[in-house]
Amino acid sequence: MFNFTFQNPTKILFGKGQIANITSEIPKNAKVLMTYGEGSIKNNGVYDQAKSALAHYTLFEFAGIEPNPEYDTLMQAVKIVQHENIDFLLAVGGGSVADGTKFIAAASLYAGHPWEILASGKPLSKALPLGVVLTLPATGTEMNGNCVVSHSAINEKRALRSPLIYPQFSVLDPEATYSVPLKQIGNGIVDSFVHVVEQYLTYPSQAPLQDRFAESIMQTLIEVGPITYHNPHDYDARSSFMWCTTMALNGLIGVGVPQDWSTHIMGYELTISYGLDHAQTLAVLLPSVMHVKRQQKQEKLLQYGERVFGITQGSIESRIDHAISKTREFFESVGVPTRLSAYNITAAAIPQFLQQLEEHGRFPLGEHRDMDRAAVQRVFENSL
Amino acid sequence: MFNFTFQNPTKILFGKGQIANITSEIPKNAKVLMTYGEGSIKNNGVYDQAKSALAHYTLFEFAGIEPNPEYDTLMQAVKIVQHENIDFLLAVGGGSVADGTKFIAAASLYAGHPWEILASGKPLSKALPLGVVLTLPATGTEMNGNCVVSHSAINEKRALRSPLIYPQFSVLDPEATYSVPLKQIGNGIVDSFVHVVEQYLTYPSQAPLQDRFAESIMQTLIEVGPITYHNPHDYDARSSFMWCTTMALNGLIGVGVPQDWSTHIMGYELTISYGLDHAQTLAVLLPSVMHVKRQQKQEKLLQYGERVFGITQGSIESRIDHAISKTREFFESVGVPTRLSAYNITAAAIPQFLQQLEEHGRFPLGEHRDMDRAAVQRVFENSL
Repeated sequence: MFNFTFQNPTKILFGKGQIANITSEIPKNAKVLMTYGEGSIKNNGVYDQAKSALAHYTLFEFAGIEPNPEYDTLMQAVKIVQHENIDFLLAVGGGSVADGTKFIAAASLYAGHPWEILASGKPLSKALPLGVVLTLPATGTEMNGNCVVSHSAINEKRALRSPLIYPQFSVLDPEATYSVPLKQIGNGIVDSFVHVVEQYLTYPSQAPLQDRFAESIMQTLIEVGPITYHNPHDYDARSSFMWCTTMALNGLIGVGVPQDWSTHIMGYELTISYGLDHAQTLAVLLPSVMHVKRQQKQEKLLQYGERVFGITQGSIESRIDHAISKTREFFESVGVPTRLSAYNITAAAIPQFLQQLEEHGRFPLGEHRDMDRAAVQRVFENSL
Repeated sequence: MFNFTFQNPTKILFGKGQIANITSEIPKNAKVLMTYGEGSIKNNGVYDQAKSALAHYTLFEFAGIEPNPEYDTLMQAVKIVQHENIDFLLAVGGGSVADGTKFIAAASLYAGHPWEILASGKPLSKALPLGVVLTLPATGTEMNGNCVVSHSAINEKRALRSPLIYPQFSVLDPEATYSVPLKQIGNGIVDSFVHVVEQYLTYPSQAPLQDRFAESIMQTLIEVGPITYHNPHDYDARSSFMWCTTMALNGLIGVGVPQDWSTHIMGYELTISYGLDHAQTLAVLLPSVMHVKRQQKQEKLLQYGERVFGITQGSIESRIDHAISKTREFFESVGVPTRLSAYNITAAAIPQFLQQLEEHGRFPLGEHRDMDRAAVQRVFENSL
């Protein structure tokens, strides 16, 4: 096990009716900006619950944070924060609204050009406090200090990590997610599963508890994922799915172990160029990463096959193939394709894909930092 | 899954050499009181490492916090804190030193009679900040807001829970635990295992992720416990053991699920009356709780047997018996007896035992609050 530092101060309010309790978590005299997306919260009661909980606050609203939140959109919210002297942000929505609001929290107090926050890699020195009411279980942003922001004008998608942007609290009410479209539930299942894989499927590192925690989340997603996909109002399944997505990326399972993240980094480029949903890129690329890196990841692939899918028979290569095909089956069982052909992307796209990764300074990738252009090309070809 | 609130702000510094990093965690101008036990840290280098890290602070020391920390001892430290205007406490030691220091943190700022903090059950309103350098993996106190204090003069042992006594940080350096006597390592393995069982072995509650996390800790303790017991200097095994003990009682596995704690509560009385180590009481009582409550706990006992020990064959009753005997074997494999006879305690002790539980207002016990005097008597008899 590697040395590590772990701290996660976010307070989780989990369960039915918890939106009403945000009142005890936001300072009484705070000027609050409530941020949300394209308005779905107005149709499922979540907007009304949040407004009602905030009845005694000076409240402003900012709507229109889009999926893959855009820098230009977020900067409009920053203007409101600065003009109105907002001192608390409440994100009501999915991962994009929460991520965007984290950036607003940082940019509102930043003295320089706000894109530097994402591009410079320098540690953040301050940010406004924020809370989250989560309506879409997927990214884990509700309990971590990460956010990802897109800047279409310059064809970039950048991540920020800082202890200053952990939400002060996050409300996880499974009932607030019942009206999420099926496609997004499928995406959330894949997204959280791949978050686990990125922190697990590397090489043995004498961290058996972290391994088992990771396997626990994957097993539970496989168990409850299809149930919550097909029965959105099953409270128990939705609850467990929601808790899995949070635990998949709150830092816990990744302490003291090597991490990969090549699937995510390659996926960003597919989103930028072709507009695929984040999870769609992961479902397409992960099985190919497993295939192309089967030698380096052999021991963990076998452990994954055995403990997550019960695969104990056959040669090493056939067990790995079996584990990969079970992974594809699982993603497809919740409606997410695992081939680029589903999006009409062909081998003709490879040169531009490699060039973008190069321009964004992404090489080399993977836990061994050994994935070069040739390896990534093989991943792409295997994903067609 | 039940509704829940979860927050754990403690920062963990894990690994070799981390004691040196406490300097960045304690405010620069703090007057620090370093608390410890009976001096073993002076023989293993931990005292010197801590002193060296604190070289630039105004530093006071308080030695002599005993196992099952005593109210009267801790009140001597409170006097020093108040007299010297201490503003940060650093506990260097095992669970007793950390627990005692949490009480000192609370009592130093308490206006009334300090025993009320433990006896009244009222929420704490303030406490000094504290940090921990852990030298004995066992109780989980390094990452929770609990402490237990004994008051021999009045034959009591009481617990305090408060968000104000979470350590600001805890250093978990496996090498700092190498010189712990074997007996205490065995105790730590049993203690952390039973912490998990208290939060797991109840009844099914639609919380599959919490179940699997709990099983992960138990499986890992079974895997690495005997290794670290027999090879104290095996860094990897000690690291995993140490991380298991922290995760066993930091609140995570207990969110949204029913909890038992009858074994702990009964065990307190055995410590008070016969001086058994805390873990010794648990090893003796838990198998009997499993036996006496086998109907109410049937589904979880079968799941425990199957997932933790691989028991899949036989009748329901024989599988439960098998799971209980595997539990005894595990405890005994790390040197902790599972029968009261090992301590020369006989059935003659039953009336006083029941009377103490009665006087301390402990009935009824268990996750169903259905363990009365008769049930507890059966537990005791089965433990002889």
